[in-house]
Amino acid sequence: MKVLVINCGSSSLKYQLFDMDREKVLAKGLVERIGIEGSRIKHTKTGLEAVVTETPIPHHKAGIKLVLDALLDEKHGVLSSLDELTAVGHRVVHAGEKFATSVKLDAKVMDALKECIPLAPLHNPANIMGIEAVSEVLPKIPQVGVFDTAFHQTMPSTAFIYALPYEYYEKYGVRRYGFHGTSHYYVAHRAAEILGRAIEKLKIVTCHLGNGSSITAVDGGKSVDTSMGFTPLAGVPMGTRCGDIDPALVTFVAEAEKLSFQEADALLNKKSGMLGLSGVSSDLRDIEEAAGRGELRSKLALQALAYAIKKYIGAYAAAMGGVDVVVFTAGVGENSATVRAAVCQGLEFMGIELDNARNAVHSQEAVISADSAKVKVLVVPTDEELVIARDTKRLVG
Amino acid sequence: MKVLVINCGSSSLKYQLFDMDREKVLAKGLVERIGIEGSRIKHTKTGLEAVVTETPIPHHKAGIKLVLDALLDEKHGVLSSLDELTAVGHRVVHAGEKFATSVKLDAKVMDALKECIPLAPLHNPANIMGIEAVSEVLPKIPQVGVFDTAFHQTMPSTAFIYALPYEYYEKYGVRRYGFHGTSHYYVAHRAAEILGRAIEKLKIVTCHLGNGSSITAVDGGKSVDTSMGFTPLAGVPMGTRCGDIDPALVTFVAEAEKLSFQEADALLNKKSGMLGLSGVSSDLRDIEEAAGRGELRSKLALQALAYAIKKYIGAYAAAMGGVDVVVFTAGVGENSATVRAAVCQGLEFMGIELDNARNAVHSQEAVISADSAKVKVLVVPTDEELVIARDTKRLVG
Repeated sequence: MKVLVINCGSSSLKYQLFDMDREKVLAKGLVERIGIEGSRIKHTKTGLEAVVTETPIPHHKAGIKLVLDALLDEKHGVLSSLDELTAVGHRVVHAGEKFATSVKLDAKVMDALKECIPLAPLHNPANIMGIEAVSEVLPKIPQVGVFDTAFHQTMPSTAFIYALPYEYYEKYGVRRYGFHGTSHYYVAHRAAEILGRAIEKLKIVTCHLGNGSSITAVDGGKSVDTSMGFTPLAGVPMGTRCGDIDPALVTFVAEAEKLSFQEADALLNKKSGMLGLSGVSSDLRDIEEAAGRGELRSKLALQALAYAIKKYIGAYAAAMGGVDVVVFTAGVGENSATVRAAVCQGLEFMGIELDNARNAVHSQEAVISADSAKVKVLVVPTDEELVIARDTKRLVG
Repeated sequence: MKVLVINCGSSSLKYQLFDMDREKVLAKGLVERIGIEGSRIKHTKTGLEAVVTETPIPHHKAGIKLVLDALLDEKHGVLSSLDELTAVGHRVVHAGEKFATSVKLDAKVMDALKECIPLAPLHNPANIMGIEAVSEVLPKIPQVGVFDTAFHQTMPSTAFIYALPYEYYEKYGVRRYGFHGTSHYYVAHRAAEILGRAIEKLKIVTCHLGNGSSITAVDGGKSVDTSMGFTPLAGVPMGTRCGDIDPALVTFVAEAEKLSFQEADALLNKKSGMLGLSGVSSDLRDIEEAAGRGELRSKLALQALAYAIKKYIGAYAAAMGGVDVVVFTAGVGENSATVRAAVCQGLEFMGIELDNARNAVHSQEAVISADSAKVKVLVVPTDEELVIARDTKRLVG
């Protein structure tokens, strides 16, 4: 069974084609600058060099057609006919409280996703565009939606409610939703598999640390709390997002800098976080380099990041009544031994202790805790696309 | 030595007169509705009934004069002459980064406190008015300022910096300051005394839970982190303040409800927290009663409060690399056995376990943890006025 996985942004479209009989990626690629000058597709057949084609791509439908052409290409393609394609799975950011699992897409589901647009005004419209483009180009192929929020729908109300007027929850759906659910789900389950333990019996803290970052408490396989909130702005400091701050700072900074609501939002989302603190970059590798050169703001940014993650691990251990496993994943979590070491340092009292040699790994599955440590710490590269492909296979199978 | 302690609000003034040779309160009282119709003074000589006198009190200077009259009153007074008064100590909310300890007030200090007005636009002007009123009425008496923020000035930058553009720290002093410092200082030290341990060797989490609430990590006697932030809005849910929320909610709610910045601030400070969640009251006693009647929103509010405090205890244990002592204080912390039990439940993995019988105490010093528990949990009634009186004695002595 061949499944195409699509992650659609407002002007971009990432894709992977899976052979789900062997769970192998046959090809993947990226369509960029849709509707903008300089649009292009970068396509890679597994085992070959990437091919980049610059061509006008006025809309997502044109982008989808290009992807299908690439998949059918004689040299770089992996399909001899579109009949080989069984289904398409889409990453969708926000399903509100409507879906707690992946679902087959139909008109009713699409209406529900449209109702969630106010909750994710930037992301859901792009995801919906991608789905509609596939429907037009491949009207007979079943499609599945896999939601970033779904895994977190098991959170109890105690964890998801904000201490705001309760009416806002009823009227506007104001609550913690959480994101990166597919990633937290994947790495929590994979960690249990690696350890040979039943996930039902484990208390796991998963640290998805990338350009966007979130920490999740996974108790018995279920998300019971997560650091992102109503939006992906909350939690630990991220590439350009501030994470948790005193909410009074929003209006203070807006008034001090004479910003509108939209400008304040943009500031907190795009000019804050590790970029705002370091003044160097939103990319952790640049900040680690600058800190290595002795730049104080970059050092502070790294310390503040590790400290925030450390506090979430402690908070979630308290929330679950203990912790058995800590998992690091995504760009920073998989690659920065420095951040992992700084996070775990001082947590020996909870049974967390790294083995320095093991912690040197990059982007590969590994147990990095010391043998004597009560808590197992792992690096598990995330694979959201695989989860989407699996859910798609299961739902159309 | 007799010391008058004053806590001045914009239209109110609380006072206590201490005999500092014996550390005893001789009299205390409250001046209310200064500059508003219906102004009055309520004065209590220790051991006698309170006396309430309604009289026009146009400004703070008139309020101070009334306080001195009450202290000199033949029947309810405690001074035979103002010459007996050695010094006046003031609670001042915000000293920014200017003062890390209490200081004797002079023109230079007053200038510094005025510079801090943008950081505490409601509180500092009232505190300054109180100091100036005393200066006018008692020009020769030395005065001391004791700052809510001072104890927290030992926080490392890692704990106090926000992941916002670093320039805002330099330009506007945007950072975590923390409040209730005098209370956290007092109960941490008192807990060490009760336990007969050196505070330098203890890791303590102090939970000041009142109408305003904050949690502090006290490592070796020093504040290393605290839940309130740039303002007293951050942290756990409070009577009417929201505590930590996704910062994106500020603009979302403002736009949804068509609020100005000021209105949004007022909403988060005055209509949120336990009041907003429960819909019943900002007073925990009312909410506990409503929860007892089965009101779901009140039950949720109580659970959310306990859960937030629990997570802070876990986070601060992680921040300090362990915890030896947890202290509950202030109205809710001293009186609600239910909240204390709900906070500690599930923290056995950290060595926290209550003794249910001991936990039944109200407003008195007690160790309430089980004998077998590694972590000592205490109730310690706070006494900010005593700290102010002690600092005043020390600085003028």
